[in-house]
Amino acid sequence: MPSYKAPTRDARFIINEVLKLESYGNLPGFDGATADIVDVVIEEAGKFAGEVLAPLNASGDAQGCTRQADGSVITPEGFKEAHRQFREAGWGTLSAPTEFGGQGMPHVLGFAIEEFMSAANQAFAMYPGLTDGAVSALLAKGSPELQAKYVLKMVANEWLGTMNLTEPQCGTDLGLIRTKAEPQADGSYAITGTKIFISAGEHDLTDNIIHLVLARLPDAPEGTKGISLFVVPKLLVNDDGSLGARNAVSCGAIEHKMGIHANATCVMNYDGATGWLVGEENKGLAAMFIMMNAARLGVGLQGLAQAEHAYQNGAAYAIERRQGRALTGPAQPQEKADPLIVHPDVRRMLMDAKAFTEGLRALGLWIGLQVDLAHRAPSDEERQAADDLVGLLTPVIKGYGTDRGFATAVDMQQIWGGHGYIVENGMEQFVRDARIAMIYEGANGVQAMDLVGRKLAAGGGRAIQAFFALVDGECAAAKGDERLSDLAARLERANGELKAATMWFLQNAMANPNNAGAGATPYMHLTGIVALGLMWLRMAKTAAAALADGSSDKAFYEAKLVTARYFGERFTPDAGALRRKIEAGSEAMMALDAEMFTTA
Amino acid sequence: MPSYKAPTRDARFIINEVLKLESYGNLPGFDGATADIVDVVIEEAGKFAGEVLAPLNASGDAQGCTRQADGSVITPEGFKEAHRQFREAGWGTLSAPTEFGGQGMPHVLGFAIEEFMSAANQAFAMYPGLTDGAVSALLAKGSPELQAKYVLKMVANEWLGTMNLTEPQCGTDLGLIRTKAEPQADGSYAITGTKIFISAGEHDLTDNIIHLVLARLPDAPEGTKGISLFVVPKLLVNDDGSLGARNAVSCGAIEHKMGIHANATCVMNYDGATGWLVGEENKGLAAMFIMMNAARLGVGLQGLAQAEHAYQNGAAYAIERRQGRALTGPAQPQEKADPLIVHPDVRRMLMDAKAFTEGLRALGLWIGLQVDLAHRAPSDEERQAADDLVGLLTPVIKGYGTDRGFATAVDMQQIWGGHGYIVENGMEQFVRDARIAMIYEGANGVQAMDLVGRKLAAGGGRAIQAFFALVDGECAAAKGDERLSDLAARLERANGELKAATMWFLQNAMANPNNAGAGATPYMHLTGIVALGLMWLRMAKTAAAALADGSSDKAFYEAKLVTARYFGERFTPDAGALRRKIEAGSEAMMALDAEMFTTA
Repeated sequence: MPSYKAPTRDARFIINEVLKLESYGNLPGFDGATADIVDVVIEEAGKFAGEVLAPLNASGDAQGCTRQADGSVITPEGFKEAHRQFREAGWGTLSAPTEFGGQGMPHVLGFAIEEFMSAANQAFAMYPGLTDGAVSALLAKGSPELQAKYVLKMVANEWLGTMNLTEPQCGTDLGLIRTKAEPQADGSYAITGTKIFISAGEHDLTDNIIHLVLARLPDAPEGTKGISLFVVPKLLVNDDGSLGARNAVSCGAIEHKMGIHANATCVMNYDGATGWLVGEENKGLAAMFIMMNAARLGVGLQGLAQAEHAYQNGAAYAIERRQGRALTGPAQPQEKADPLIVHPDVRRMLMDAKAFTEGLRALGLWIGLQVDLAHRAPSDEERQAADDLVGLLTPVIKGYGTDRGFATAVDMQQIWGGHGYIVENGMEQFVRDARIAMIYEGANGVQAMDLVGRKLAAGGGRAIQAFFALVDGECAAAKGDERLSDLAARLERANGELKAATMWFLQNAMANPNNAGAGATPYMHLTGIVALGLMWLRMAKTAAAALADGSSDKAFYEAKLVTARYFGERFTPDAGALRRKIEAGSEAMMALDAEMFTTA
Repeated sequence: MPSYKAPTRDARFIINEVLKLESYGNLPGFDGATADIVDVVIEEAGKFAGEVLAPLNASGDAQGCTRQADGSVITPEGFKEAHRQFREAGWGTLSAPTEFGGQGMPHVLGFAIEEFMSAANQAFAMYPGLTDGAVSALLAKGSPELQAKYVLKMVANEWLGTMNLTEPQCGTDLGLIRTKAEPQADGSYAITGTKIFISAGEHDLTDNIIHLVLARLPDAPEGTKGISLFVVPKLLVNDDGSLGARNAVSCGAIEHKMGIHANATCVMNYDGATGWLVGEENKGLAAMFIMMNAARLGVGLQGLAQAEHAYQNGAAYAIERRQGRALTGPAQPQEKADPLIVHPDVRRMLMDAKAFTEGLRALGLWIGLQVDLAHRAPSDEERQAADDLVGLLTPVIKGYGTDRGFATAVDMQQIWGGHGYIVENGMEQFVRDARIAMIYEGANGVQAMDLVGRKLAAGGGRAIQAFFALVDGECAAAKGDERLSDLAARLERANGELKAATMWFLQNAMANPNNAGAGATPYMHLTGIVALGLMWLRMAKTAAAALADGSSDKAFYEAKLVTARYFGERFTPDAGALRRKIEAGSEAMMALDAEMFTTA
């Protein structure tokens, strides 16, 4: 059975050494995040993830959730106790605002911990993870009364939250939502309709569950301009905060899924359930997007997380399992065979995994810092610049992160050979669990269109231009350093391909928007490569400096330099191919009549 | 639930129009394969696959196989009856030799049918598929007595066969085999040991099961030079052909797997079971490779097959499901939303699937024809040339075919969004089933090393040089035709990248064989792109000629030209990136100490 040890050394390296979090100590909320405190929080979170959550990952998958005849749902053995420990340790409160019982720590720290929890047990981590999203929406758009009633308990994980968007006839296209909200005399609304694919829709972890639900008012305009957001608690909450009557919302069924069996994915039936409006009427989509954007970054981290857990067990097997001999002659002639890790093709998969996971971890944490800076940086310009980066790279972290995260889980299963296909060995669970992250919170094709259709154009292309300049600037600065110059040159070339692809969109997407759609996914991957390249350049720079300073942790920093080189050699060459695919446009892609896809 | 309709039109196009099978009518065994007969056989096989096997695919997955307390195994409902129909229709006999009850038809036809059966129900198709491999080994190496006793019944599918290679301590590295074979006074051997991952090791489809088993004689040399092959029937066979006593071989357990649940993957215990030597002592590996090479091509076809079944259902959903609007404005303004297929990113996945499946089908059938020509072509030179192509492209069909086949199944699941993650919709089964094909019969990394380490060098590089010349020749011939010139130019460039990569191996792998290992997988994919490009060039040429002749099936041929163009635009650009990855060599890849993969 797989084991998991949170990559705490790497997270601390990124936060303390690469991002230098301590240097932001003058900003509100950052003063508590000294390197010492970061180290303690990271190590404790890693311990919790490895010791409490990881041991429930395989058993949770095997048992799944069970719906009882009365509609209640039982989570797998150990989940309730683990969630009690999670709550008591205050892991849900870390970066929540202090006025609602949170610790007000920077999000960048919250991101690191989210990775560990998701890696150890994605199905478990989704329960508190969705709650965080619901809290964000309530904090941004909810009235002070709603906030007072719900947020404190949700931050404390005494109640958990959900997001209710999807209906049978609509997933991506929320304009098709049919769930109705009828205004009531007391200012509440009666919510009626069916929602599907509701993660953590019903469970036994907490007494109450707070659903955030998209629905339409009777007179609402058609499409996405007629959607409103409501808070609908499972149990009504009295004015004194005590729990009241059961609301008319219930779990009709649990879906049978490919993976994340331990998270209850529910069909939720609303039969005139009492709800309260969050924000303005017909402005529900904007409120939901607040939740969704946070959730998208979280899902990107899931891609990283499953890749990391799988990688650790792929590497362990490659070291332990003996099969065949090194191409250069027996590495351990006293044994009957060499360990798998002597084989270059096994190394290839491990180095790909290492270059991806460490690179995406750096990218996720850097963007986590930007989330903080977007709120707390001293000047408008700095906040805007940070917000631009978050907007631009959220679809990349989600889409590229989960595509590549899934591919990494598949590679790590491959290292196990036939044993990787056997359920009890746990490697195939990573593949099944990682698969969902490419789909939910906006399928990756939707992320690609968000990037190309919305984020590139926003503010006259301000975000992408700033990103180009950032990459070029850091490449130019690194070129003189012989330990960095090869990667810097390769990254500069990849950035050039990205610029050319962007220019191609400018010139060709206006006349035919399908040209943007046809290139969207390659563009998202191309941006991912450049963004990870920038992270590797920074990590290499930090590592080179530490080595020059005579650090005692030499092997760690040398490995960073080797992996940075590997990234340059093995990841950046795809940039040119991706650009050429983009420049092929949409003509051949869109040429066939639909029926040519169904006649064979 | 998914449905499957065998792509018979496409198979007939390739066999009759592209390969022009009828033009080989003067060769032994080919005279029966007129275009009319090919059409009938293909259509009937397609019907059987779609109507009998496909409906059992999801139910077989849900039920799986059950081992009883006495060690017997029950296959899912309907499998026994389906196999009875398979046997009675004679689908197992098609390309088997006439002297053993076969129909002696060309293998190329057998390949087409194998795709359909695997696509409709991979777990089912493995039962007769493994039997074909066992028959090949017995025909090539078995004594006339063994052949007389077993082959007739196996060709008729009255008895099914298995391959027993893997043991707990050895998969890829067969030199580590421990199963023992003790010579007995009557000329038989007593086989003792444990084999794992034995597909179809025990079941209720036939009265007898014929195991081909690798084992070591008491005085055998160490390693792969001390392995012998034995035939070990489940029930001993009397001299008159009737069934005798139960042999000392039994199924100890069925593995719980990620997919192909309906195929019983068994732990087989041999407790002094009676076996007979196949071929010479200590030459078992060579005999096993006869089986394995046939099986590898079959597994490559499985990659294609699962991709095809998934593609059909991805396309159907893309046409039926409405979500969002076309980027160019509502395509069906009278409806509330447009079908998914208007979205370029959905098209991208469908066109990728179409370009891959039709390309790999052509490649598989072309190599199927080469298998025939390697035996039946009139001259030594022609037989050698055909055999070279089979040897060179077998690892490519297996490795590239299953890597890309799996990726295609993942893409088709993606088109279904959240519904693709739900078990009952059947899309996730394709992903789980397709996954094994990358692993068994030699993991894809082993295929890549077979290509780079063995096939490139064989005969002084004769096979790859002939392949280069073939591609260049057809590109040069096509350049003057404006309907083909763009693809020809792109393919020529890709072939140039492949030549450069080959040259790089020549110059760098001698000094350090890890340089070959480090580039093996990219090289396998690069070869796959060039081989599929050659097929697309041929298909485009055939289609263009049919259109010029005023064919009435215009839409079919126009679609071939569009898809050929798409292949050139969207597949060939990867060639340059793959070459650059190869040329990066092994230095960074192999630089880290093993422990740097386990400390985080």
